[in-house]
Amino acid sequence: MFADRLIKKIEEMKNPSLLGLDPLVEYVPKSIREKYDTDGKAILEFNQRLIDSLHSIMPAVKFQSAYYELLGTEGIVTLRDSIHYAKYRGMITLLDAKRNDIGSTADAYANAYLDKGELEVDAITVNAYLGSDGIQPFIDKCKKNDKGIFVLVKTSNPSSGELQDMKLENGQKVYERMAELVNLWNKGTEGQEKYGFVGAVVGGTYPGQLITLRNAMPSSFILIPGYGAQGAGAGHVAGGFDGNGRGAIVNSSRGIMNAWKSDKNTRRYEHEEFCESAIEEAVRMKNMINEAISER
Amino acid sequence: MFADRLIKKIEEMKNPSLLGLDPLVEYVPKSIREKYDTDGKAILEFNQRLIDSLHSIMPAVKFQSAYYELLGTEGIVTLRDSIHYAKYRGMITLLDAKRNDIGSTADAYANAYLDKGELEVDAITVNAYLGSDGIQPFIDKCKKNDKGIFVLVKTSNPSSGELQDMKLENGQKVYERMAELVNLWNKGTEGQEKYGFVGAVVGGTYPGQLITLRNAMPSSFILIPGYGAQGAGAGHVAGGFDGNGRGAIVNSSRGIMNAWKSDKNTRRYEHEEFCESAIEEAVRMKNMINEAISER
Repeated sequence: MFADRLIKKIEEMKNPSLLGLDPLVEYVPKSIREKYDTDGKAILEFNQRLIDSLHSIMPAVKFQSAYYELLGTEGIVTLRDSIHYAKYRGMITLLDAKRNDIGSTADAYANAYLDKGELEVDAITVNAYLGSDGIQPFIDKCKKNDKGIFVLVKTSNPSSGELQDMKLENGQKVYERMAELVNLWNKGTEGQEKYGFVGAVVGGTYPGQLITLRNAMPSSFILIPGYGAQGAGAGHVAGGFDGNGRGAIVNSSRGIMNAWKSDKNTRRYEHEEFCESAIEEAVRMKNMINEAISER
Repeated sequence: MFADRLIKKIEEMKNPSLLGLDPLVEYVPKSIREKYDTDGKAILEFNQRLIDSLHSIMPAVKFQSAYYELLGTEGIVTLRDSIHYAKYRGMITLLDAKRNDIGSTADAYANAYLDKGELEVDAITVNAYLGSDGIQPFIDKCKKNDKGIFVLVKTSNPSSGELQDMKLENGQKVYERMAELVNLWNKGTEGQEKYGFVGAVVGGTYPGQLITLRNAMPSSFILIPGYGAQGAGAGHVAGGFDGNGRGAIVNSSRGIMNAWKSDKNTRRYEHEEFCESAIEEAVRMKNMINEAISER
């Protein structure tokens, strides 16, 4: 079961965090960029070197589809080769694509990413504004191929409340209604460790709602964006974990990819040292989150 | 302005409908499939032949991204080449991708599809569950590059009400709140013909809501899916048009791509005659919609 595999990997590494690979070509040092004729190839080496450096520290990697789509057809080749490399290095792979559509079209997306195609990953993020028949094709694939999905519930951005925080007639907020749907879809999919394959995305930038939603969706793994560059700290994300310190995974993208620039580093790094600095930041993030969880 | 261009093209052809290219390889006749070593190439010829047959009858084409993503890296090449071919044939191009993300990531999507990249189209569908800061980057590109977006408001699928029809404390339904946000984003973007570049997606399968939403979003172009295969007829979609018979465009995908199978045809068609039958269906659709609009 996907959630069991994710928990096992997190516990082996004692690290509930996730390498976010949302690369812009500007993040790649000049020395790498100069070796290649295209941005896609430079980004592939950048990704591979980060995966080489972090696969023994971080259990999973999340690719943000937008940054690959940005490069057109070549970007999808870069995405494919990066996914394959992360799998070869033993990491659990997530695609942050927030896909959403209905019936046969949702089925095409589920086939594209949760079946035996070139871009197959372990889990994908989805947007459920369209309701159950947009989600069912993904659930079918999760069952068939031991995959996972993460449904957007409360997103990390400043304006997420414009729709998500609206109060319904029945007293629920829109994001609480979404959490209720997540529970419905997740029901009966639980593995050995009580978590099912329908997870949720809840921003670390809303620590109060994160605690509420942790309790409201007791069997859903929570993917927490917003750490680092978006402003959430270890104390903010700790509320996403259950009493056993399980059930959530925290993403950091720019914080790790651009760690060489950070003022928290133990020494000054050059851009070429993006891997050494990424390791320092990944270890710092892991320790801070584990500490914040144990201190609750 | 995007909406002005769309209106002009619709009026030139007296046809407020849209060719949906959501091709599965099964839709392509054997004689084409046998010519190529990959599904992507066969689909490209299928698309090109439909575009050749319909570009003088239909003002615009909508590509459903999922069916191209389904084919992996090669599918994106097919998508790119199909978009370029439709432009070369003078059609307005839409990408139905329902993209959604925040800040810098939404910016990457907007750059990918509404700027000078390989996959540039005239307009894209977006999902606004995340609120304004997921939409602003698309609006910026619309302004800069004369593009359009269509925001999912009320989708055509049976379960769309699970979230979209929930009643808010203030009496609005969730989709009405979304329509309100669309108005907010669209305000001030109107062209000569009173329509702005922030449009909406409203399913033809909900004719009552379509009329309500036509009135609630007086300056937003409505993209209407659900015609044909999903069950909406000309009478159902007519409510999406304003008093001058403007302001909406109706999509048909499977109904046109697989028209050779239809029992409405004036004669029996073979699979190889998918273009001839597509023309018959496109003309029938155009006439039925125009008639339904004028009869209101």
